[in-house]
Amino acid sequence: MKTLYKNAVVLQNGHSPVIKNGFFGVDGKLISYVGSKAPEEKYDSVIDMSDKIIMPGLYNCHTHTPMTLLRGVGSGLPLDKWLFECVFPIENRLTREDVRIGSELAMLEMIAGGTVSFSDMYFYPEETAKAAVEAGMMANVSRHVQAFPFDPPGESDKRINESLELIKKYNGAGDGRIKADFSIHAEYTCDEATAKYYSSICREYGGNMHIHLSETFKEHAECKEKYGKTPAKWFYDLGAFDSSAFLAHCVAIEDEDIGIIKDSGASVVHTPTSNMKLGSGFMPLKKLLSSGVNVCLGTDGAASNNNLSMLEEMHLAAVIHNGYNNDATAVNAGTVIDMATVNGAALQRREKRGELREGFFADFIALNADKPHMRPCLDVPSIVVYSASAADVCLTVCNGRVLYENGEFKALDKERIYYNAERAVERLYGQ
Amino acid sequence: MKTLYKNAVVLQNGHSPVIKNGFFGVDGKLISYVGSKAPEEKYDSVIDMSDKIIMPGLYNCHTHTPMTLLRGVGSGLPLDKWLFECVFPIENRLTREDVRIGSELAMLEMIAGGTVSFSDMYFYPEETAKAAVEAGMMANVSRHVQAFPFDPPGESDKRINESLELIKKYNGAGDGRIKADFSIHAEYTCDEATAKYYSSICREYGGNMHIHLSETFKEHAECKEKYGKTPAKWFYDLGAFDSSAFLAHCVAIEDEDIGIIKDSGASVVHTPTSNMKLGSGFMPLKKLLSSGVNVCLGTDGAASNNNLSMLEEMHLAAVIHNGYNNDATAVNAGTVIDMATVNGAALQRREKRGELREGFFADFIALNADKPHMRPCLDVPSIVVYSASAADVCLTVCNGRVLYENGEFKALDKERIYYNAERAVERLYGQ
Repeated sequence: MKTLYKNAVVLQNGHSPVIKNGFFGVDGKLISYVGSKAPEEKYDSVIDMSDKIIMPGLYNCHTHTPMTLLRGVGSGLPLDKWLFECVFPIENRLTREDVRIGSELAMLEMIAGGTVSFSDMYFYPEETAKAAVEAGMMANVSRHVQAFPFDPPGESDKRINESLELIKKYNGAGDGRIKADFSIHAEYTCDEATAKYYSSICREYGGNMHIHLSETFKEHAECKEKYGKTPAKWFYDLGAFDSSAFLAHCVAIEDEDIGIIKDSGASVVHTPTSNMKLGSGFMPLKKLLSSGVNVCLGTDGAASNNNLSMLEEMHLAAVIHNGYNNDATAVNAGTVIDMATVNGAALQRREKRGELREGFFADFIALNADKPHMRPCLDVPSIVVYSASAADVCLTVCNGRVLYENGEFKALDKERIYYNAERAVERLYGQ
Repeated sequence: MKTLYKNAVVLQNGHSPVIKNGFFGVDGKLISYVGSKAPEEKYDSVIDMSDKIIMPGLYNCHTHTPMTLLRGVGSGLPLDKWLFECVFPIENRLTREDVRIGSELAMLEMIAGGTVSFSDMYFYPEETAKAAVEAGMMANVSRHVQAFPFDPPGESDKRINESLELIKKYNGAGDGRIKADFSIHAEYTCDEATAKYYSSICREYGGNMHIHLSETFKEHAECKEKYGKTPAKWFYDLGAFDSSAFLAHCVAIEDEDIGIIKDSGASVVHTPTSNMKLGSGFMPLKKLLSSGVNVCLGTDGAASNNNLSMLEEMHLAAVIHNGYNNDATAVNAGTVIDMATVNGAALQRREKRGELREGFFADFIALNADKPHMRPCLDVPSIVVYSASAADVCLTVCNGRVLYENGEFKALDKERIYYNAERAVERLYGQ
């Protein structure tokens, strides 16, 4: 099946010139044509995309999908109370089935908002993996390893085994759309022996390590007090960055940490909404970008956001650092588009994805610019980053398969997921 | 005509308990019933609002509506270049007709996003007033007074006369929906004699004065250097706050300024997106709120935002100060809802508006919560502020008249406005 989209504004990535009145061809799973002139080859169907912007699908590089079932709980509480009195007690009640349902609800939201791939960290991750296979999305799933002093004997080994089981069973599932990553939750929730041992397995395997790093100034300072080094240095010394790693939050990192991250080839995932809402602070985005670190974007979980809109993350990433640095030029729209797309594909180690180029996989979305807030559409990257929102997405295609079109889900059963989510919420909250 | 909305979640304001499965009655221009039980009186029509949140319409208290025609121009430029090389040259080409068209495009966007009233500052303000009469919205329009050293003789008098003409002709127009305010653009664009003279007229008239105040640290510092006092003190001493005033931005204000503002009874309009995007900085929101100042929200113009979504402003206001103060409790959702609604009505000096109470005017909106990102809807103010966006608005009612419903504009002709806006853009930009 070959489909040609015509009369579109085509945004191939954040750094190339925009093609107006462009043609965009898809042949099966691949992009077969991108250009301002009509292609010579024939297409089975031709779709008019006037007033639409075609751009790469979005990569949500740090989330906890099942937490949609905790959306909005404890908003406005101090961080400790929110986590210990709200989030943890509910998470303790979450069943394997809840994790599946929460993941599915998240996928509805992500697909409707133009996300084609996500990097997840949660328990029962095989439920998220199975749901992503069905949803037609790409996903890097992981079971985070932790080690607490109060753990019963063998507990951290059990978590490591769960992680390795996941990798064995689900890495490469769904025609390669699913990847299973390694994950250590954070420095403050692990010990040295466990982190070192698990990192050595990751190195042998050549795996991708998903870590929460220096999310708050408090955890960063406590680590320095305890170990005499920053969390980045701690993980680096234990070998956690030896293979490939991606580090969520990085609010409190220091200049030397940026050097370590850059030298290790690790990626950083910026989560602006979560960092703002939870009062964590401002990641040094300008410094990271100028150091050449691969910086991506993520929503974090719905409990600390409270949505999974990547266009909202893009908007915040584009504006808050200007405010914080008193500099209107701190972050530009094209950079943010790359952070949300091609940089995400690099983090997930997916080749030929994240940009609209001939021969690349057909992962793309369309934004409907036939709305008052998108008019006039004089500067396309600026409109996408500063004016658009998730609801402007009218088409989401992953691997050449249409997952969402004009409000309709093509792969997932919205009504069933809504029904199950309501039952789960009744069980969890008694309402 | 009496209409009853049933099965709705009713959010009367940001500080009262939410009514679930509520009833909301409208009789002509007024709210006739709000409650959790069915009213005893009969209604002509009954509308099911399952999965909908009914809340007060939003007040955009600082904007420059005609600037939709400049949406996105010069994004990413330093503030001075953006203003002098991009915005001013285009504004110099704007005709009276362009101002009308830009205002109408803005009203489409505002109505679709749940805004029922706005406070505007621009030239040819009578065009904006006429458009608002037609659009069915409320508007506080103003012609800003300026006085430059390079002005030809009589220029500032001309501007003052335009302002007074506007007030004479349009204050109270549209069945009271339109109010004409006084306005001084800013300290750095006016001189003492003009500001003092114009303020004395405002005082006599009992008018409402719209001012840009301490938007940047640069202008604030320059004023102190020039006059030995802050812009707030400068305006106060010249009598600009004597009657009633509202002050946009206030990023650089100091503690003493907050005292002056509070004592004068002036309102402050927070414009978080514009302040972030242009690199201006963080308004001291926490201090202003704890001082008891009436704080409202505004989008600023589309050129520095780049949209007019009040739900986006609410979101930013609710999260950025938590990040800036490293405090997850800095600003709560209910406070932000009040800032966007009832506080705006107070700023605009409109009685019996801004909250959903029996006997108040029927200015309300509905949000469609039947979307993945709005589920589960456990904490309604939190969902509204952190999860919703402008596209979730499915009903906008002002003064009892339906202006927008499920994507359809009931008062404005979208196609005509789009057509005119495209012609205006061709004229302005040659494309």
